[in-house]
This record gives sequence, C-alpha cells and structure tokens, in this order.
Amino acid sequence: MEISDILMLLTPIGAVLALGFAVYNGMKVMKYPEGSAQVQSISEKIRKGANAFLRRQYTVVAVFFALMLVVLCVMAGFGFLTWFVPFAFVTGGFFSGLSGFVGMKLATYANSRTATASKESLNKGLRVAFSAGSVMGFTVVGLGLFDLAIWYYLLHYVFGRGIAETTAAMLTFGMGASCMALFARVGGGIFTKAADVGADLVGKVEAGIPEDDPRNPAVIADNVGDNVGDVAGMGADLYESYVGAIVASCALGVAAFPQFNATQGSPAVTIPMAMAGIGVIITIIGSFLIRTKENATQKALLAALRRGTNFSAFAIAILAFPLVKVMLPDNIGVYGAVLSGLFAGVGIAFFTEYYTSDNYKPTRDLAESTKTGSATLIIGGLSLGMLSTAIPLLIVCASILVSYFVAGGAGNPALGLYGIGISAVGMLSTLGLTLANDSYGPVADNAGGIAEMAGLEPEVRKRTDALDSLGNTTAAVGKGFCIGAGALTALALIAAYIDRVAVLTVTALENAITKVTNMDVATLRENLNLASLTVNEQVAALREHAEIVGAEISRAATFNFNLAIDTPTVLVGLFIGGMLPFVFTALTMKSVGRAAQKIVVEVRRQFREIKGLMEGTAEADYATCVDLCTRSALREMVLPTILAIASPIATGLILGPNGVVGLLIGCTVSGFMMAIMTANSGGAWDNAKKYIEAGHHGGKGSDAHKAAVVGDTVGDPLKDTCGPSIDILLKLSSMVSIVFAALVLSFHFLQ
Amino acid sequence: MEISDILMLLTPIGAVLALGFAVYNGMKVMKYPEGSAQVQSISEKIRKGANAFLRRQYTVVAVFFALMLVVLCVMAGFGFLTWFVPFAFVTGGFFSGLSGFVGMKLATYANSRTATASKESLNKGLRVAFSAGSVMGFTVVGLGLFDLAIWYYLLHYVFGRGIAETTAAMLTFGMGASCMALFARVGGGIFTKAADVGADLVGKVEAGIPEDDPRNPAVIADNVGDNVGDVAGMGADLYESYVGAIVASCALGVAAFPQFNATQGSPAVTIPMAMAGIGVIITIIGSFLIRTKENATQKALLAALRRGTNFSAFAIAILAFPLVKVMLPDNIGVYGAVLSGLFAGVGIAFFTEYYTSDNYKPTRDLAESTKTGSATLIIGGLSLGMLSTAIPLLIVCASILVSYFVAGGAGNPALGLYGIGISAVGMLSTLGLTLANDSYGPVADNAGGIAEMAGLEPEVRKRTDALDSLGNTTAAVGKGFCIGAGALTALALIAAYIDRVAVLTVTALENAITKVTNMDVATLRENLNLASLTVNEQVAALREHAEIVGAEISRAATFNFNLAIDTPTVLVGLFIGGMLPFVFTALTMKSVGRAAQKIVVEVRRQFREIKGLMEGTAEADYATCVDLCTRSALREMVLPTILAIASPIATGLILGPNGVVGLLIGCTVSGFMMAIMTANSGGAWDNAKKYIEAGHHGGKGSDAHKAAVVGDTVGDPLKDTCGPSIDILLKLSSMVSIVFAALVLSFHFLQ
Repeated sequence: MEISDILMLLTPIGAVLALGFAVYNGMKVMKYPEGSAQVQSISEKIRKGANAFLRRQYTVVAVFFALMLVVLCVMAGFGFLTWFVPFAFVTGGFFSGLSGFVGMKLATYANSRTATASKESLNKGLRVAFSAGSVMGFTVVGLGLFDLAIWYYLLHYVFGRGIAETTAAMLTFGMGASCMALFARVGGGIFTKAADVGADLVGKVEAGIPEDDPRNPAVIADNVGDNVGDVAGMGADLYESYVGAIVASCALGVAAFPQFNATQGSPAVTIPMAMAGIGVIITIIGSFLIRTKENATQKALLAALRRGTNFSAFAIAILAFPLVKVMLPDNIGVYGAVLSGLFAGVGIAFFTEYYTSDNYKPTRDLAESTKTGSATLIIGGLSLGMLSTAIPLLIVCASILVSYFVAGGAGNPALGLYGIGISAVGMLSTLGLTLANDSYGPVADNAGGIAEMAGLEPEVRKRTDALDSLGNTTAAVGKGFCIGAGALTALALIAAYIDRVAVLTVTALENAITKVTNMDVATLRENLNLASLTVNEQVAALREHAEIVGAEISRAATFNFNLAIDTPTVLVGLFIGGMLPFVFTALTMKSVGRAAQKIVVEVRRQFREIKGLMEGTAEADYATCVDLCTRSALREMVLPTILAIASPIATGLILGPNGVVGLLIGCTVSGFMMAIMTANSGGAWDNAKKYIEAGHHGGKGSDAHKAAVVGDTVGDPLKDTCGPSIDILLKLSSMVSIVFAALVLSFHFLQ
Repeated sequence: MEISDILMLLTPIGAVLALGFAVYNGMKVMKYPEGSAQVQSISEKIRKGANAFLRRQYTVVAVFFALMLVVLCVMAGFGFLTWFVPFAFVTGGFFSGLSGFVGMKLATYANSRTATASKESLNKGLRVAFSAGSVMGFTVVGLGLFDLAIWYYLLHYVFGRGIAETTAAMLTFGMGASCMALFARVGGGIFTKAADVGADLVGKVEAGIPEDDPRNPAVIADNVGDNVGDVAGMGADLYESYVGAIVASCALGVAAFPQFNATQGSPAVTIPMAMAGIGVIITIIGSFLIRTKENATQKALLAALRRGTNFSAFAIAILAFPLVKVMLPDNIGVYGAVLSGLFAGVGIAFFTEYYTSDNYKPTRDLAESTKTGSATLIIGGLSLGMLSTAIPLLIVCASILVSYFVAGGAGNPALGLYGIGISAVGMLSTLGLTLANDSYGPVADNAGGIAEMAGLEPEVRKRTDALDSLGNTTAAVGKGFCIGAGALTALALIAAYIDRVAVLTVTALENAITKVTNMDVATLRENLNLASLTVNEQVAALREHAEIVGAEISRAATFNFNLAIDTPTVLVGLFIGGMLPFVFTALTMKSVGRAAQKIVVEVRRQFREIKGLMEGTAEADYATCVDLCTRSALREMVLPTILAIASPIATGLILGPNGVVGLLIGCTVSGFMMAIMTANSGGAWDNAKKYIEAGHHGGKGSDAHKAAVVGDTVGDPLKDTCGPSIDILLKLSSMVSIVFAALVLSFHFLQ
C-alpha cells in the first residue's frame, strides 16, 4: 500500500467516525426525558406535521428525479454521457435528502427534550440542543464522505476507471445533491416562512397575542416550518456545499496534474479527500471543547462555541501542511491556498457577526431607526445589507488572488484554479462543527415554542430565548461562511466546466480522426503523445493532425473557447447570469408572499368562525394550516428549480459554451451579492427586533416594536428562503452545465 | 464642401434649433399669468430655496472641478494626457450644470403658471407644464450638441488635429459631464427625498395632515426638492447620457475604421453626430403633434404624448437609412444597429409602463397586497422590482447581439462594437421629446403643491394630480429608457477604454523604439506602414520591431490584454465592479435616511414649539428645513462621488487594465439590475399608493393607505436618488478609467 492509498483511507474513516459520532449524539439526545404529557403531545403534533411534509415533498422530488434519470439515461444512450452519470446523479440526491431527513427526525425529538432540559438549567438546554445540532452536522459530513468514498472506490477498483473519469462521475452526484438541496431549501423555506409570516401578521400584529401562543392556528405550522426549512432544508443544502467543493477540487486537480491521468489515483485528488477526512476527526475533538459553566452568560456561550471552531481551524491549518508536503512536494504553494480559505472563512464569519449581531453598531443603529417608523427601518435594513456585501466580497477576492497565485497560477493557470478549489475545501473543512452551531438554533426555537404552548414557567422560555438569540447569530455566521465557500466552489466548478468542454472537444476530434484513419483511440493518443499534454495542447495537436488526415469535423470538434469578456456571447451570458439571482429571489419571495397571504386568510377565518378560540376554551384547527403550507410549498418550489436547471441549458444552446461561462460567472457575481445582502438584512432586522424586545426603545408593544416586526417580517423570506437558495443556484447551474456540456457542445447556435 | 462636411453641419444646426426652440417654449411659459399674490409669494419661496441650493451646490462642485483641473493639468504636464483634456473636462461639467440650471430656473417660474392655468382647464395646465418640460428637454440636447460641435470644430479647424485625438478629447468632456451629473443627481436626490420622506413621515403619518399642507414646516423644502432633484438633477444626468452615447460611438467609429485615421474626418464619426442633429429637428416637429382636446381623459393625454414620440422614432428610422447609405455604403448593416436601438427603446418603455402603471396587473396586485399590511407590500414591491429586470435585460441583450452582428462584428469585432454604440445613439435620438415628457411631471407636482398651499379650488388640485400621475408613468418610462441606453453606452465606453489602452501601448512602444533608433515617430509609423493597421496589429508589429532594434521596454509597453473571463484579475475586477452599485445604493439610501431623520426631528420640534402652527394661525419656519436639506445634501453627496471616481483608479493600479475591464463590466451588469429594480419598485409603490388614493381598497385614510404610504416612502429614495445615480455611475467609472488609462498603464501592479 502506498502512502497515497493510506491517506485516501482517511475519507472512509472520516465517514465512519462522523456517522458514529452522529449516532452517539443522537443517543445522548434520546436519553433525556421528553417531559410532561402536554409537552409530548405538542411535540408529536410538530413531528407528525414535519414527517407528513417531508413524505409529500420527497414524493414530488422522487418524480423529478425519475424524470431526470430518464433524460440522463437517454443522453447516455446517445453517448453524451457515461453510464455512471445517471446513477451518480441519483445517489447524490438520495444522500442529500437523507441528510436532511435524519437531521430533521432528530430535531423533532430534541425540541421537547430541550424544553424539558431548560427547566433545569440553561447549560442543560444548550447541551441537548447542541447535541441535536451535532447529529445534523456530522450526518451531513459523514454521508458526504461516504458517498464520495463509495464512488471513488467503486470506479477505481471495481470498474478500473482512470482518475479523470472517476472525478467526472463524482461531479454528477454533486448535481444530484444540488437538485435535492434546491428543492429542500426552496420548498422548506417557503413552508417555514409562509407559516412564520402568516402567523405573525395575524397573531402578533392584528390579534395582539404573543408569538407561539397556542390560540394562533398557524403556531404548529410555524414550528413544523423550523424543522422542515431550517433543519431539513439546511442539511440538504450543506451536504451539497460540502460535496460540491470537494468534487470540484478533485476535477481541477485532475486538470492541473495531467501527468497522473494515466494512473488510477492522483495526489491532487487525495489532498481534498484526505483533508475532509482530517477535518472530521479534528472537529469531533473540537466539539468536546464546547462546554460552559452552569448559568453561563450569552457571551460565555458564544465564547465556548468559538473555542471549538477556532481550535478546529487551527488544527487543520497545522495538519494540512504535512499532507500537502507528502502528496505534492513540488507544489507546496497549495498549502497557502488551504490557509487562505481558512482565513477567509474566519474573516467572513467575523464581519457577518459584526453586521447582524446586536452587540455591534449597525444593528443597534437599525433598531434606533424604528423611532421614525417602519419605512426608515426598511430603508436602513436594505442599505445595511447592501453595504455589508463589501467586506466579505473583498475577502473572497483576496482569497481568489492569493490561492490562485500561491498555488502557481502565474506559471500554469490550471494550478491556480486548483488552488481556488482547495481554498474552498479549506474553508469548509470545519463544516461538521459549523453546521452543529448553525442547526441547534431551530431546535432551541422549537423548544421555546413548545414551552410557550405547554405553559411552562416563564424562566424556561427566557432560557430557550437566550439559546435562540445565540442561534440567530451563529446561523447568520454559518450563512456567511457557506456563501463565501459557495462562491469559491462555484468558481472551481466553472473552471471544471471549461475543462470538461475542452476534454469533450478532444474526444470529438479523436473520433473524427479515428473514423478516417481506422486507428483506435489509444494508438492515436500514443502516437501523438497526448497523455503528457494539457487539454488545450491536446486540442491543438489533434486539430493539426485532423487537417493532415482530412478528418470530417463535427460541430463539437470545431468549438473554440473565446472567453474574452468583450466577446458578445460572453457579455450577453454575463448579463443573463447576473439577472438570474434577481429573478430567482423575486420568484421565491413572491411564493412566500402568496403562501403567507393564504395562511393569513385561513387564520382570520378560524378566529372568526371557531367560537371560544381567543378565550382559550376551544382548540384551533392546526392541521389545516399545516396542510395549506405543505401544498403551497410543494406547488411553489417547482418553478424556481426548473428555472435554475433550464437557464444554463437554454443559454448554452443559443450562445454556446462561451455564453455559458459568461452566464455562470455573472450568476456567481450577482448571486454572491444578493445572498449576502439578503442574509445580512434579514439577520439584522431579526436581531434589531430582539434588541427592542430586550427592553430598548420602549420594548415589546411599543411603536418601535411594531415597526421592528414589519422589518422582521420582510427579512424572514429574504434570509431564510431567498438567500440560502441563491447559494445553491450558483453551484447547481454550474453542475447542470457540466452534465449537459456534451449536448450543448453538439447543438449550439452562436459561438 | 464634401457631403460629409455638410452632414456634419447638422450638429451645430441641431444645437441652434434646439436652443431656439427652448427659448420659444420658455417665452410661451412666461407669457402665462402667474396668478394671485399668494400663489406668487409661494412660488417665490420655492424659487429662492432652489436658487440658494443650486448656488451652494455649484460652489462645492466648482471646488471639486478646480481640484480635478489641477490633477488633470499635472497629469498633462507629465505627458499622461494631452493638454486639451483638462479643459474639455471643465466644459463638459459646465454645460451639464448649465442644462440643469436653465431647466430648473424655468420650472420654478412654470409651477405657479401651471397652477393658475389649471384653474381654467386641464389642457391649459398640460400645455404650460409641457412647455416647461420642453425647455428642459431641448436645452439639454441643444447644449449637448453645442458642446460637441465646439470641440469638434475647434480641434479640427483651429488646432488641425486628427480625428483620433479629437474623439479622445471629446470623451473627456463626457467625464466632466458625468461628474457634474453625479453631483447633481446625488445631491439633488438626497435633498428632494429627505424633504419628501421627512415631510411625509411627520405630516402624513404622525400629524395626519394632507400632503403639501402649508402647516407642514417641510412643505417648501419638499417643493424645492422637486426642482433641484427631479428637474436640475435630471437635466445634468440626461445631458451626460446624451453626450456620453455620442462621444462613445465616435471613439468606436475611429477604432473601427482606421483607414480614416490619417484624415481629419471620419464617416463613422459623422453618423452619430449627424443623427443627433436629425433627431433634434424631428423631435421639434414631433412635439407639435402633442395636442389634446379640452377636458381630455388621462388616457387621451398619454396617447397624445405617445403620438409625438412614436412619430419621432418612426421618422428617425426612415432618415437614418440615407445617412448610413451615404456615409458608409459598404457597412449598411450599421443601419440595423440604429433600428435595434430604436426598437429596444420602445420595448423597454412598454415593459416599464407595464410594471409601474396602475393600468396593469403588477401594480394592482401590489395595491391589493396592502390588505395584509405594509410588510407584504414591501415584500411584493421588492419582488416586483427584481422580476421586472428580466425583460428589459433580455431586450438589451438582444440589442447587443443584433447590433454587434448586423454591423459586421463576426468578421471584425471593432465594427460590432461600433454597432453597439450606434444602437445607443439610436435609442437616445428622440431624447429631446422623451425628456420633455419626463420633466413636466415635477412641474405639475409643484403646481399641485402651490394649489394646495394657496388654497385654490379642489378642482385645480384634481387637475394637477392627473398631470402628476401621468408624469409618474412617463418619468418611470423615461428612466427605463435611460437605463437601457446607459447600459449600451457603458459597453461602448468600455470598448473605447480597451481601444484607448491599446493605443497607449502603441505610443509607449513607439517612444521606446524612437529612443534607440533616433528616428522620429512619423517616419517609424511610415516605415512599418502602421496607418493601415488596427491597434492590435500595430502593437504586434511594433513589439517585433522593438526586439529587433533592442529598445528598452517601459512598464506601459509590456502590457498585454488578457481579457479571458477566467483570468483572476478579470474575475476579481468583475466581483468588485459587481459590488459597486450595491455599495453605492447603500450609501445614497443611508444618506437620504440620515437627512430625513434630521428633518423629522426639526418638523417635530416646530410642531411642538411654534404655537398655533397646527391651528393655522402661525406660519412655519420653512427656511430652516430648506437649509437643513441643503446642508445634508451637500455633505452627503461627496462620498459616493469620490467612491465612483476612486474605485476604478485604485482597482486599476492594483489589478491593471484587465482588472479595470472586469470592474467596468461587472459594474454595468449589476448596476443595470439595481437601476431597473430600484426604479420599478419605487414607481410601482408610488402608483399603488395613488391607486388606493383614487378610492380602491378603502381609499385615503384606510389601513391599506397607511401601508401604501410606507411603501411609497421606502420607494422614494430608491427610485429618485439611488437608481438614477447608478445609471451615471456606470458611465462615469468608464470615463474615469479612460482619462486615467495612461497613469494606470504606467503604474499597475498585477496583470
């Protein structure tokens, strides 16, 4: 066994450890008592609603996957894809969906237990909620590494394929994961925000009853939403981010080190895979560092969480060095790319916290602007979000330049692009822990809801509120982190797309030549000594040879990349790509608005028609609201997903691959802006409201508070439906382009 | 005299006719009676406030221009610029400012006359307001053509310069005009919206008094704002758009037809200049077609306006054919570019009307969403704005592709880029009339304010409201039009930038060679036969020669364009450029918010401290509010302008010209989105409010109306401050890049 094979084992080992740690945490959660009969009954209602939604959602998604499977099989039949691709696509979708399902399942058991544990102490509550978050975090990374390992070893050992074909197939399961993630995020996001906005609009604003009041008919739907949107949706989403970054780096590694293409493994592939495995081991250790004293302050809680992530980032920074040194001793600059990714992650996290936490000036100023009403609050929040894009963007730009140049991009662009991919992997290597921090928030939120509905002592609600508020900040930080990594991953995928098109052009040329010369491809490649050349060099050599032998050139074989930004196809692609996140945000916002209005109508109807509801003598019809949300979410999630998949294909068929590259980059640029803006505007509005509720500017019930509720309501769909979905959109459109590259290459109209 | 010289005379003839027509309209306005003493006194207060603001604003701007003049002179002294540039810069700024000043001056005389004429009939009111708008429209195009003609003839006949140097100098006065425009739009925009928002927040929302009530201390400031923002700001802005499109096309014409470089004129320059002259003549005729019957409906009014613009577009479409046929008989495809521009303008105008007029579904749905409160209205308006970017964007993309390819871009990219420039000129050739339609709105708005304050009969207010509402739609259409043309102009300017850098590289190489060979530049150019080559070919030939003679190559001479979109400098430039409109919007919004809050505090103070104000027995202290707005606007307009100027220079020094091109294109893409989104969201909110005020969903004073006021208040800064300023930002950053190209080329860090 070579050292490379041993290091590669870190991937399956990481997968097993992560899944084991998830089970360990799950058992820890289940050991806690669930609480009183009333708590149990409420929790069961939420669980049932969440399960019902997921079942129906996954049914719709299954139909979509079946259709896509047929499309991909037909394409494989015509030779546009290898036969691995359709099945890789399905497994990606399956594991992504499974990540969401497992996380959500546990969250719906953990909510009541967190509420009950919070009766004892804040620390106990934190432990249960954080354990539930850890189940999610480590399920995502565990299943991700598991899927990666399966496909790698399967193609490598069972089918004996070369590393290039292996990484190409792995990119496709990234596409499956992205499709599933988009459905989960958009569907779950519409569900949760329609319920939340609808419940608030009638409950808080019109009827004047507090949040999570059991008299509100939409209250169970609201709590179900936390689980299906903020937990299941996020799980599928982050599975996609994690796997996407790794497979993109692998593909770029293959392109950057063509000397390994003839062999079955490549050190450039081992690095991201092994680094992900190391990340799992480190973050498991890191999560044991998260402990607080009994009755710790919120600041101490945040410090405890930070201790865990900082340790992990630091440890990975150290361990990545020997990994790169052993695998790519002549390209130690790649280590610099890892560092730049880790630093960028820390930087983005800090500035997200700065812009959205009420410990800092921006959110406090925003809270202050409620004094002049909701209009100035909206103006302030929008401008805060727009302004907050600047620093994360500059950090990502610095990360692009540093990782490109330290990895050797000045001499060989392919190395530089590999560096960008590796920096994304570096940023996401602590994901297990980041995600655990990120996803205990909704559990705490749910626990608070249950405490309110079950009429537990006010002290319990206060504790769950403290956890929830902390969760708001960690969630915003997690989002900033994911968007940063998402932009880098998207760029890596775009580079992979360019490489893929070049490889397809090579294949088309090879076929054209072998047709007239009756030579087999292997001999041709050997004669021209192609194995040692980069793809672009291969295209040049083959084109020359094709002319000599008089081969008939197909449409695909004539394609030339002309990526100059002032080429009209690239330029128009850029414009169209720049538009996509705007239209996508508009569609998802409108969906939430429409669905919320239905909830409003239904809640008003119940208040009007159910006698004794406001007095607390009759029970609300929770199930109808859950059902309304479910139906709206399922109906509304289809159009945005189709838009995301169809746009790059349609653009490709008209403008050709040059236009597609323009589209993908345009989409990444404006999507990055929109994702950060929506996340931070929404987060700041939410926390400005919480800041006022904590007693500032007149506290709950004041005019300032009423204005703040408007801001929070506007921000809800922005931060929890639109923003996270855009992040997926960026990567999905790249992956779709890669999978459909052969089709587009054969049938494009303009060049 | 050749035919080309005769056609070129259309420019000065157009200038004289336009200015004459403006004077004629101005005299028509002044002939109307001003009205009662009270009307006169109110109008005088507004006039005084507006004059005072403009005087103080122009003083600040003069200081800025003086500083820039010094900077440019120093650069000229070091040989980075020709000595014409600093003075061209100043004249551009001067005429742009003058356009705004003349238009505003007349608007402040026309407001009282419109109010008085509306006492007689709607048609009379329309005539006065429209005549005032025509003064503005034709002053802008007249001064624009005048400035163009002066510089063209001066450089041509007096200094005997070649066409390349002439167009280069003309680009600089575009930069002067853009700087002035940005100050005027940002400063005026902050003034008007701070006053408007401030007056509404306290007056309408808190005190419950109607709009334009004389008891509101901010009411005069609000009316002053209409004049300094919506009239003077718009005048300077459109002067910039108009001149920018023409000079960009001229510069691209020079690049596309190098065979004329040795001569003093070029048919490719004659076409845009003469077409602008023809446009003036046609639109003067068109404006006589705008007549309505006594007591016409709003629909008939709109139809009358449309008749004028449609006639003009049609006539220009016909007359452009012989112009192109005579000037460029071998490139008749350029005529297709004119048509594509005209069509795109009409298309964008229609869809802007669709999204923002309450005759159509989107705005009606938006009005309906007020039923569930201001939060759903804000969500709805934001998503409407985002969605409305799609069609205008696709129209612009189609226009780019069509004008590029019909002009011959497939064979020669320079021809294609010239086509894009010409399509922008085509779109803007009807500007005189569009602008007249656009700028009578604020006059009507002011007239309504005066009618209210002077206590004229309610019938008068109703008539001015009808005019104002119509003005809202024509203003939104005008904005859509300008943004579309702005995007095309920005692209043309970017192409001009690329060409400029290439020309500078040629010069640097020539200097390096002549230094070692002791040959003069003319001989060198003749020896290498450079005159007949494109710039890129010249660079190649010179570089080869430089190696042969062993010339020492400076930093500027080594530069190579590598505009591939996956080059890290281009990519990072794209990201930074994509961010600029977000940050710019954030800054201007924040400025309005801050200034408005000051007004709120002051108005509240006056209501509290001035006894008898609410009862109408004491007069408010209007002057303090005007002064507050003035100071805020002047202070807040500086930072955004500096950002716009400094960003491309700083980016250029770090990333080099490749990064600058990325920045400019990124800025154009995301700026286009933001400009359309802000304009349409704002317009739709405004009209949704008007729709409710017309009696729908409960009418004035209902909860729906209260929610609608919030939407309108949020939309105000978006549509009247941020959006129009972004449109200028796009072009200003390109022009700054062009002017500072030599500096950046000599001192850039990365490539």
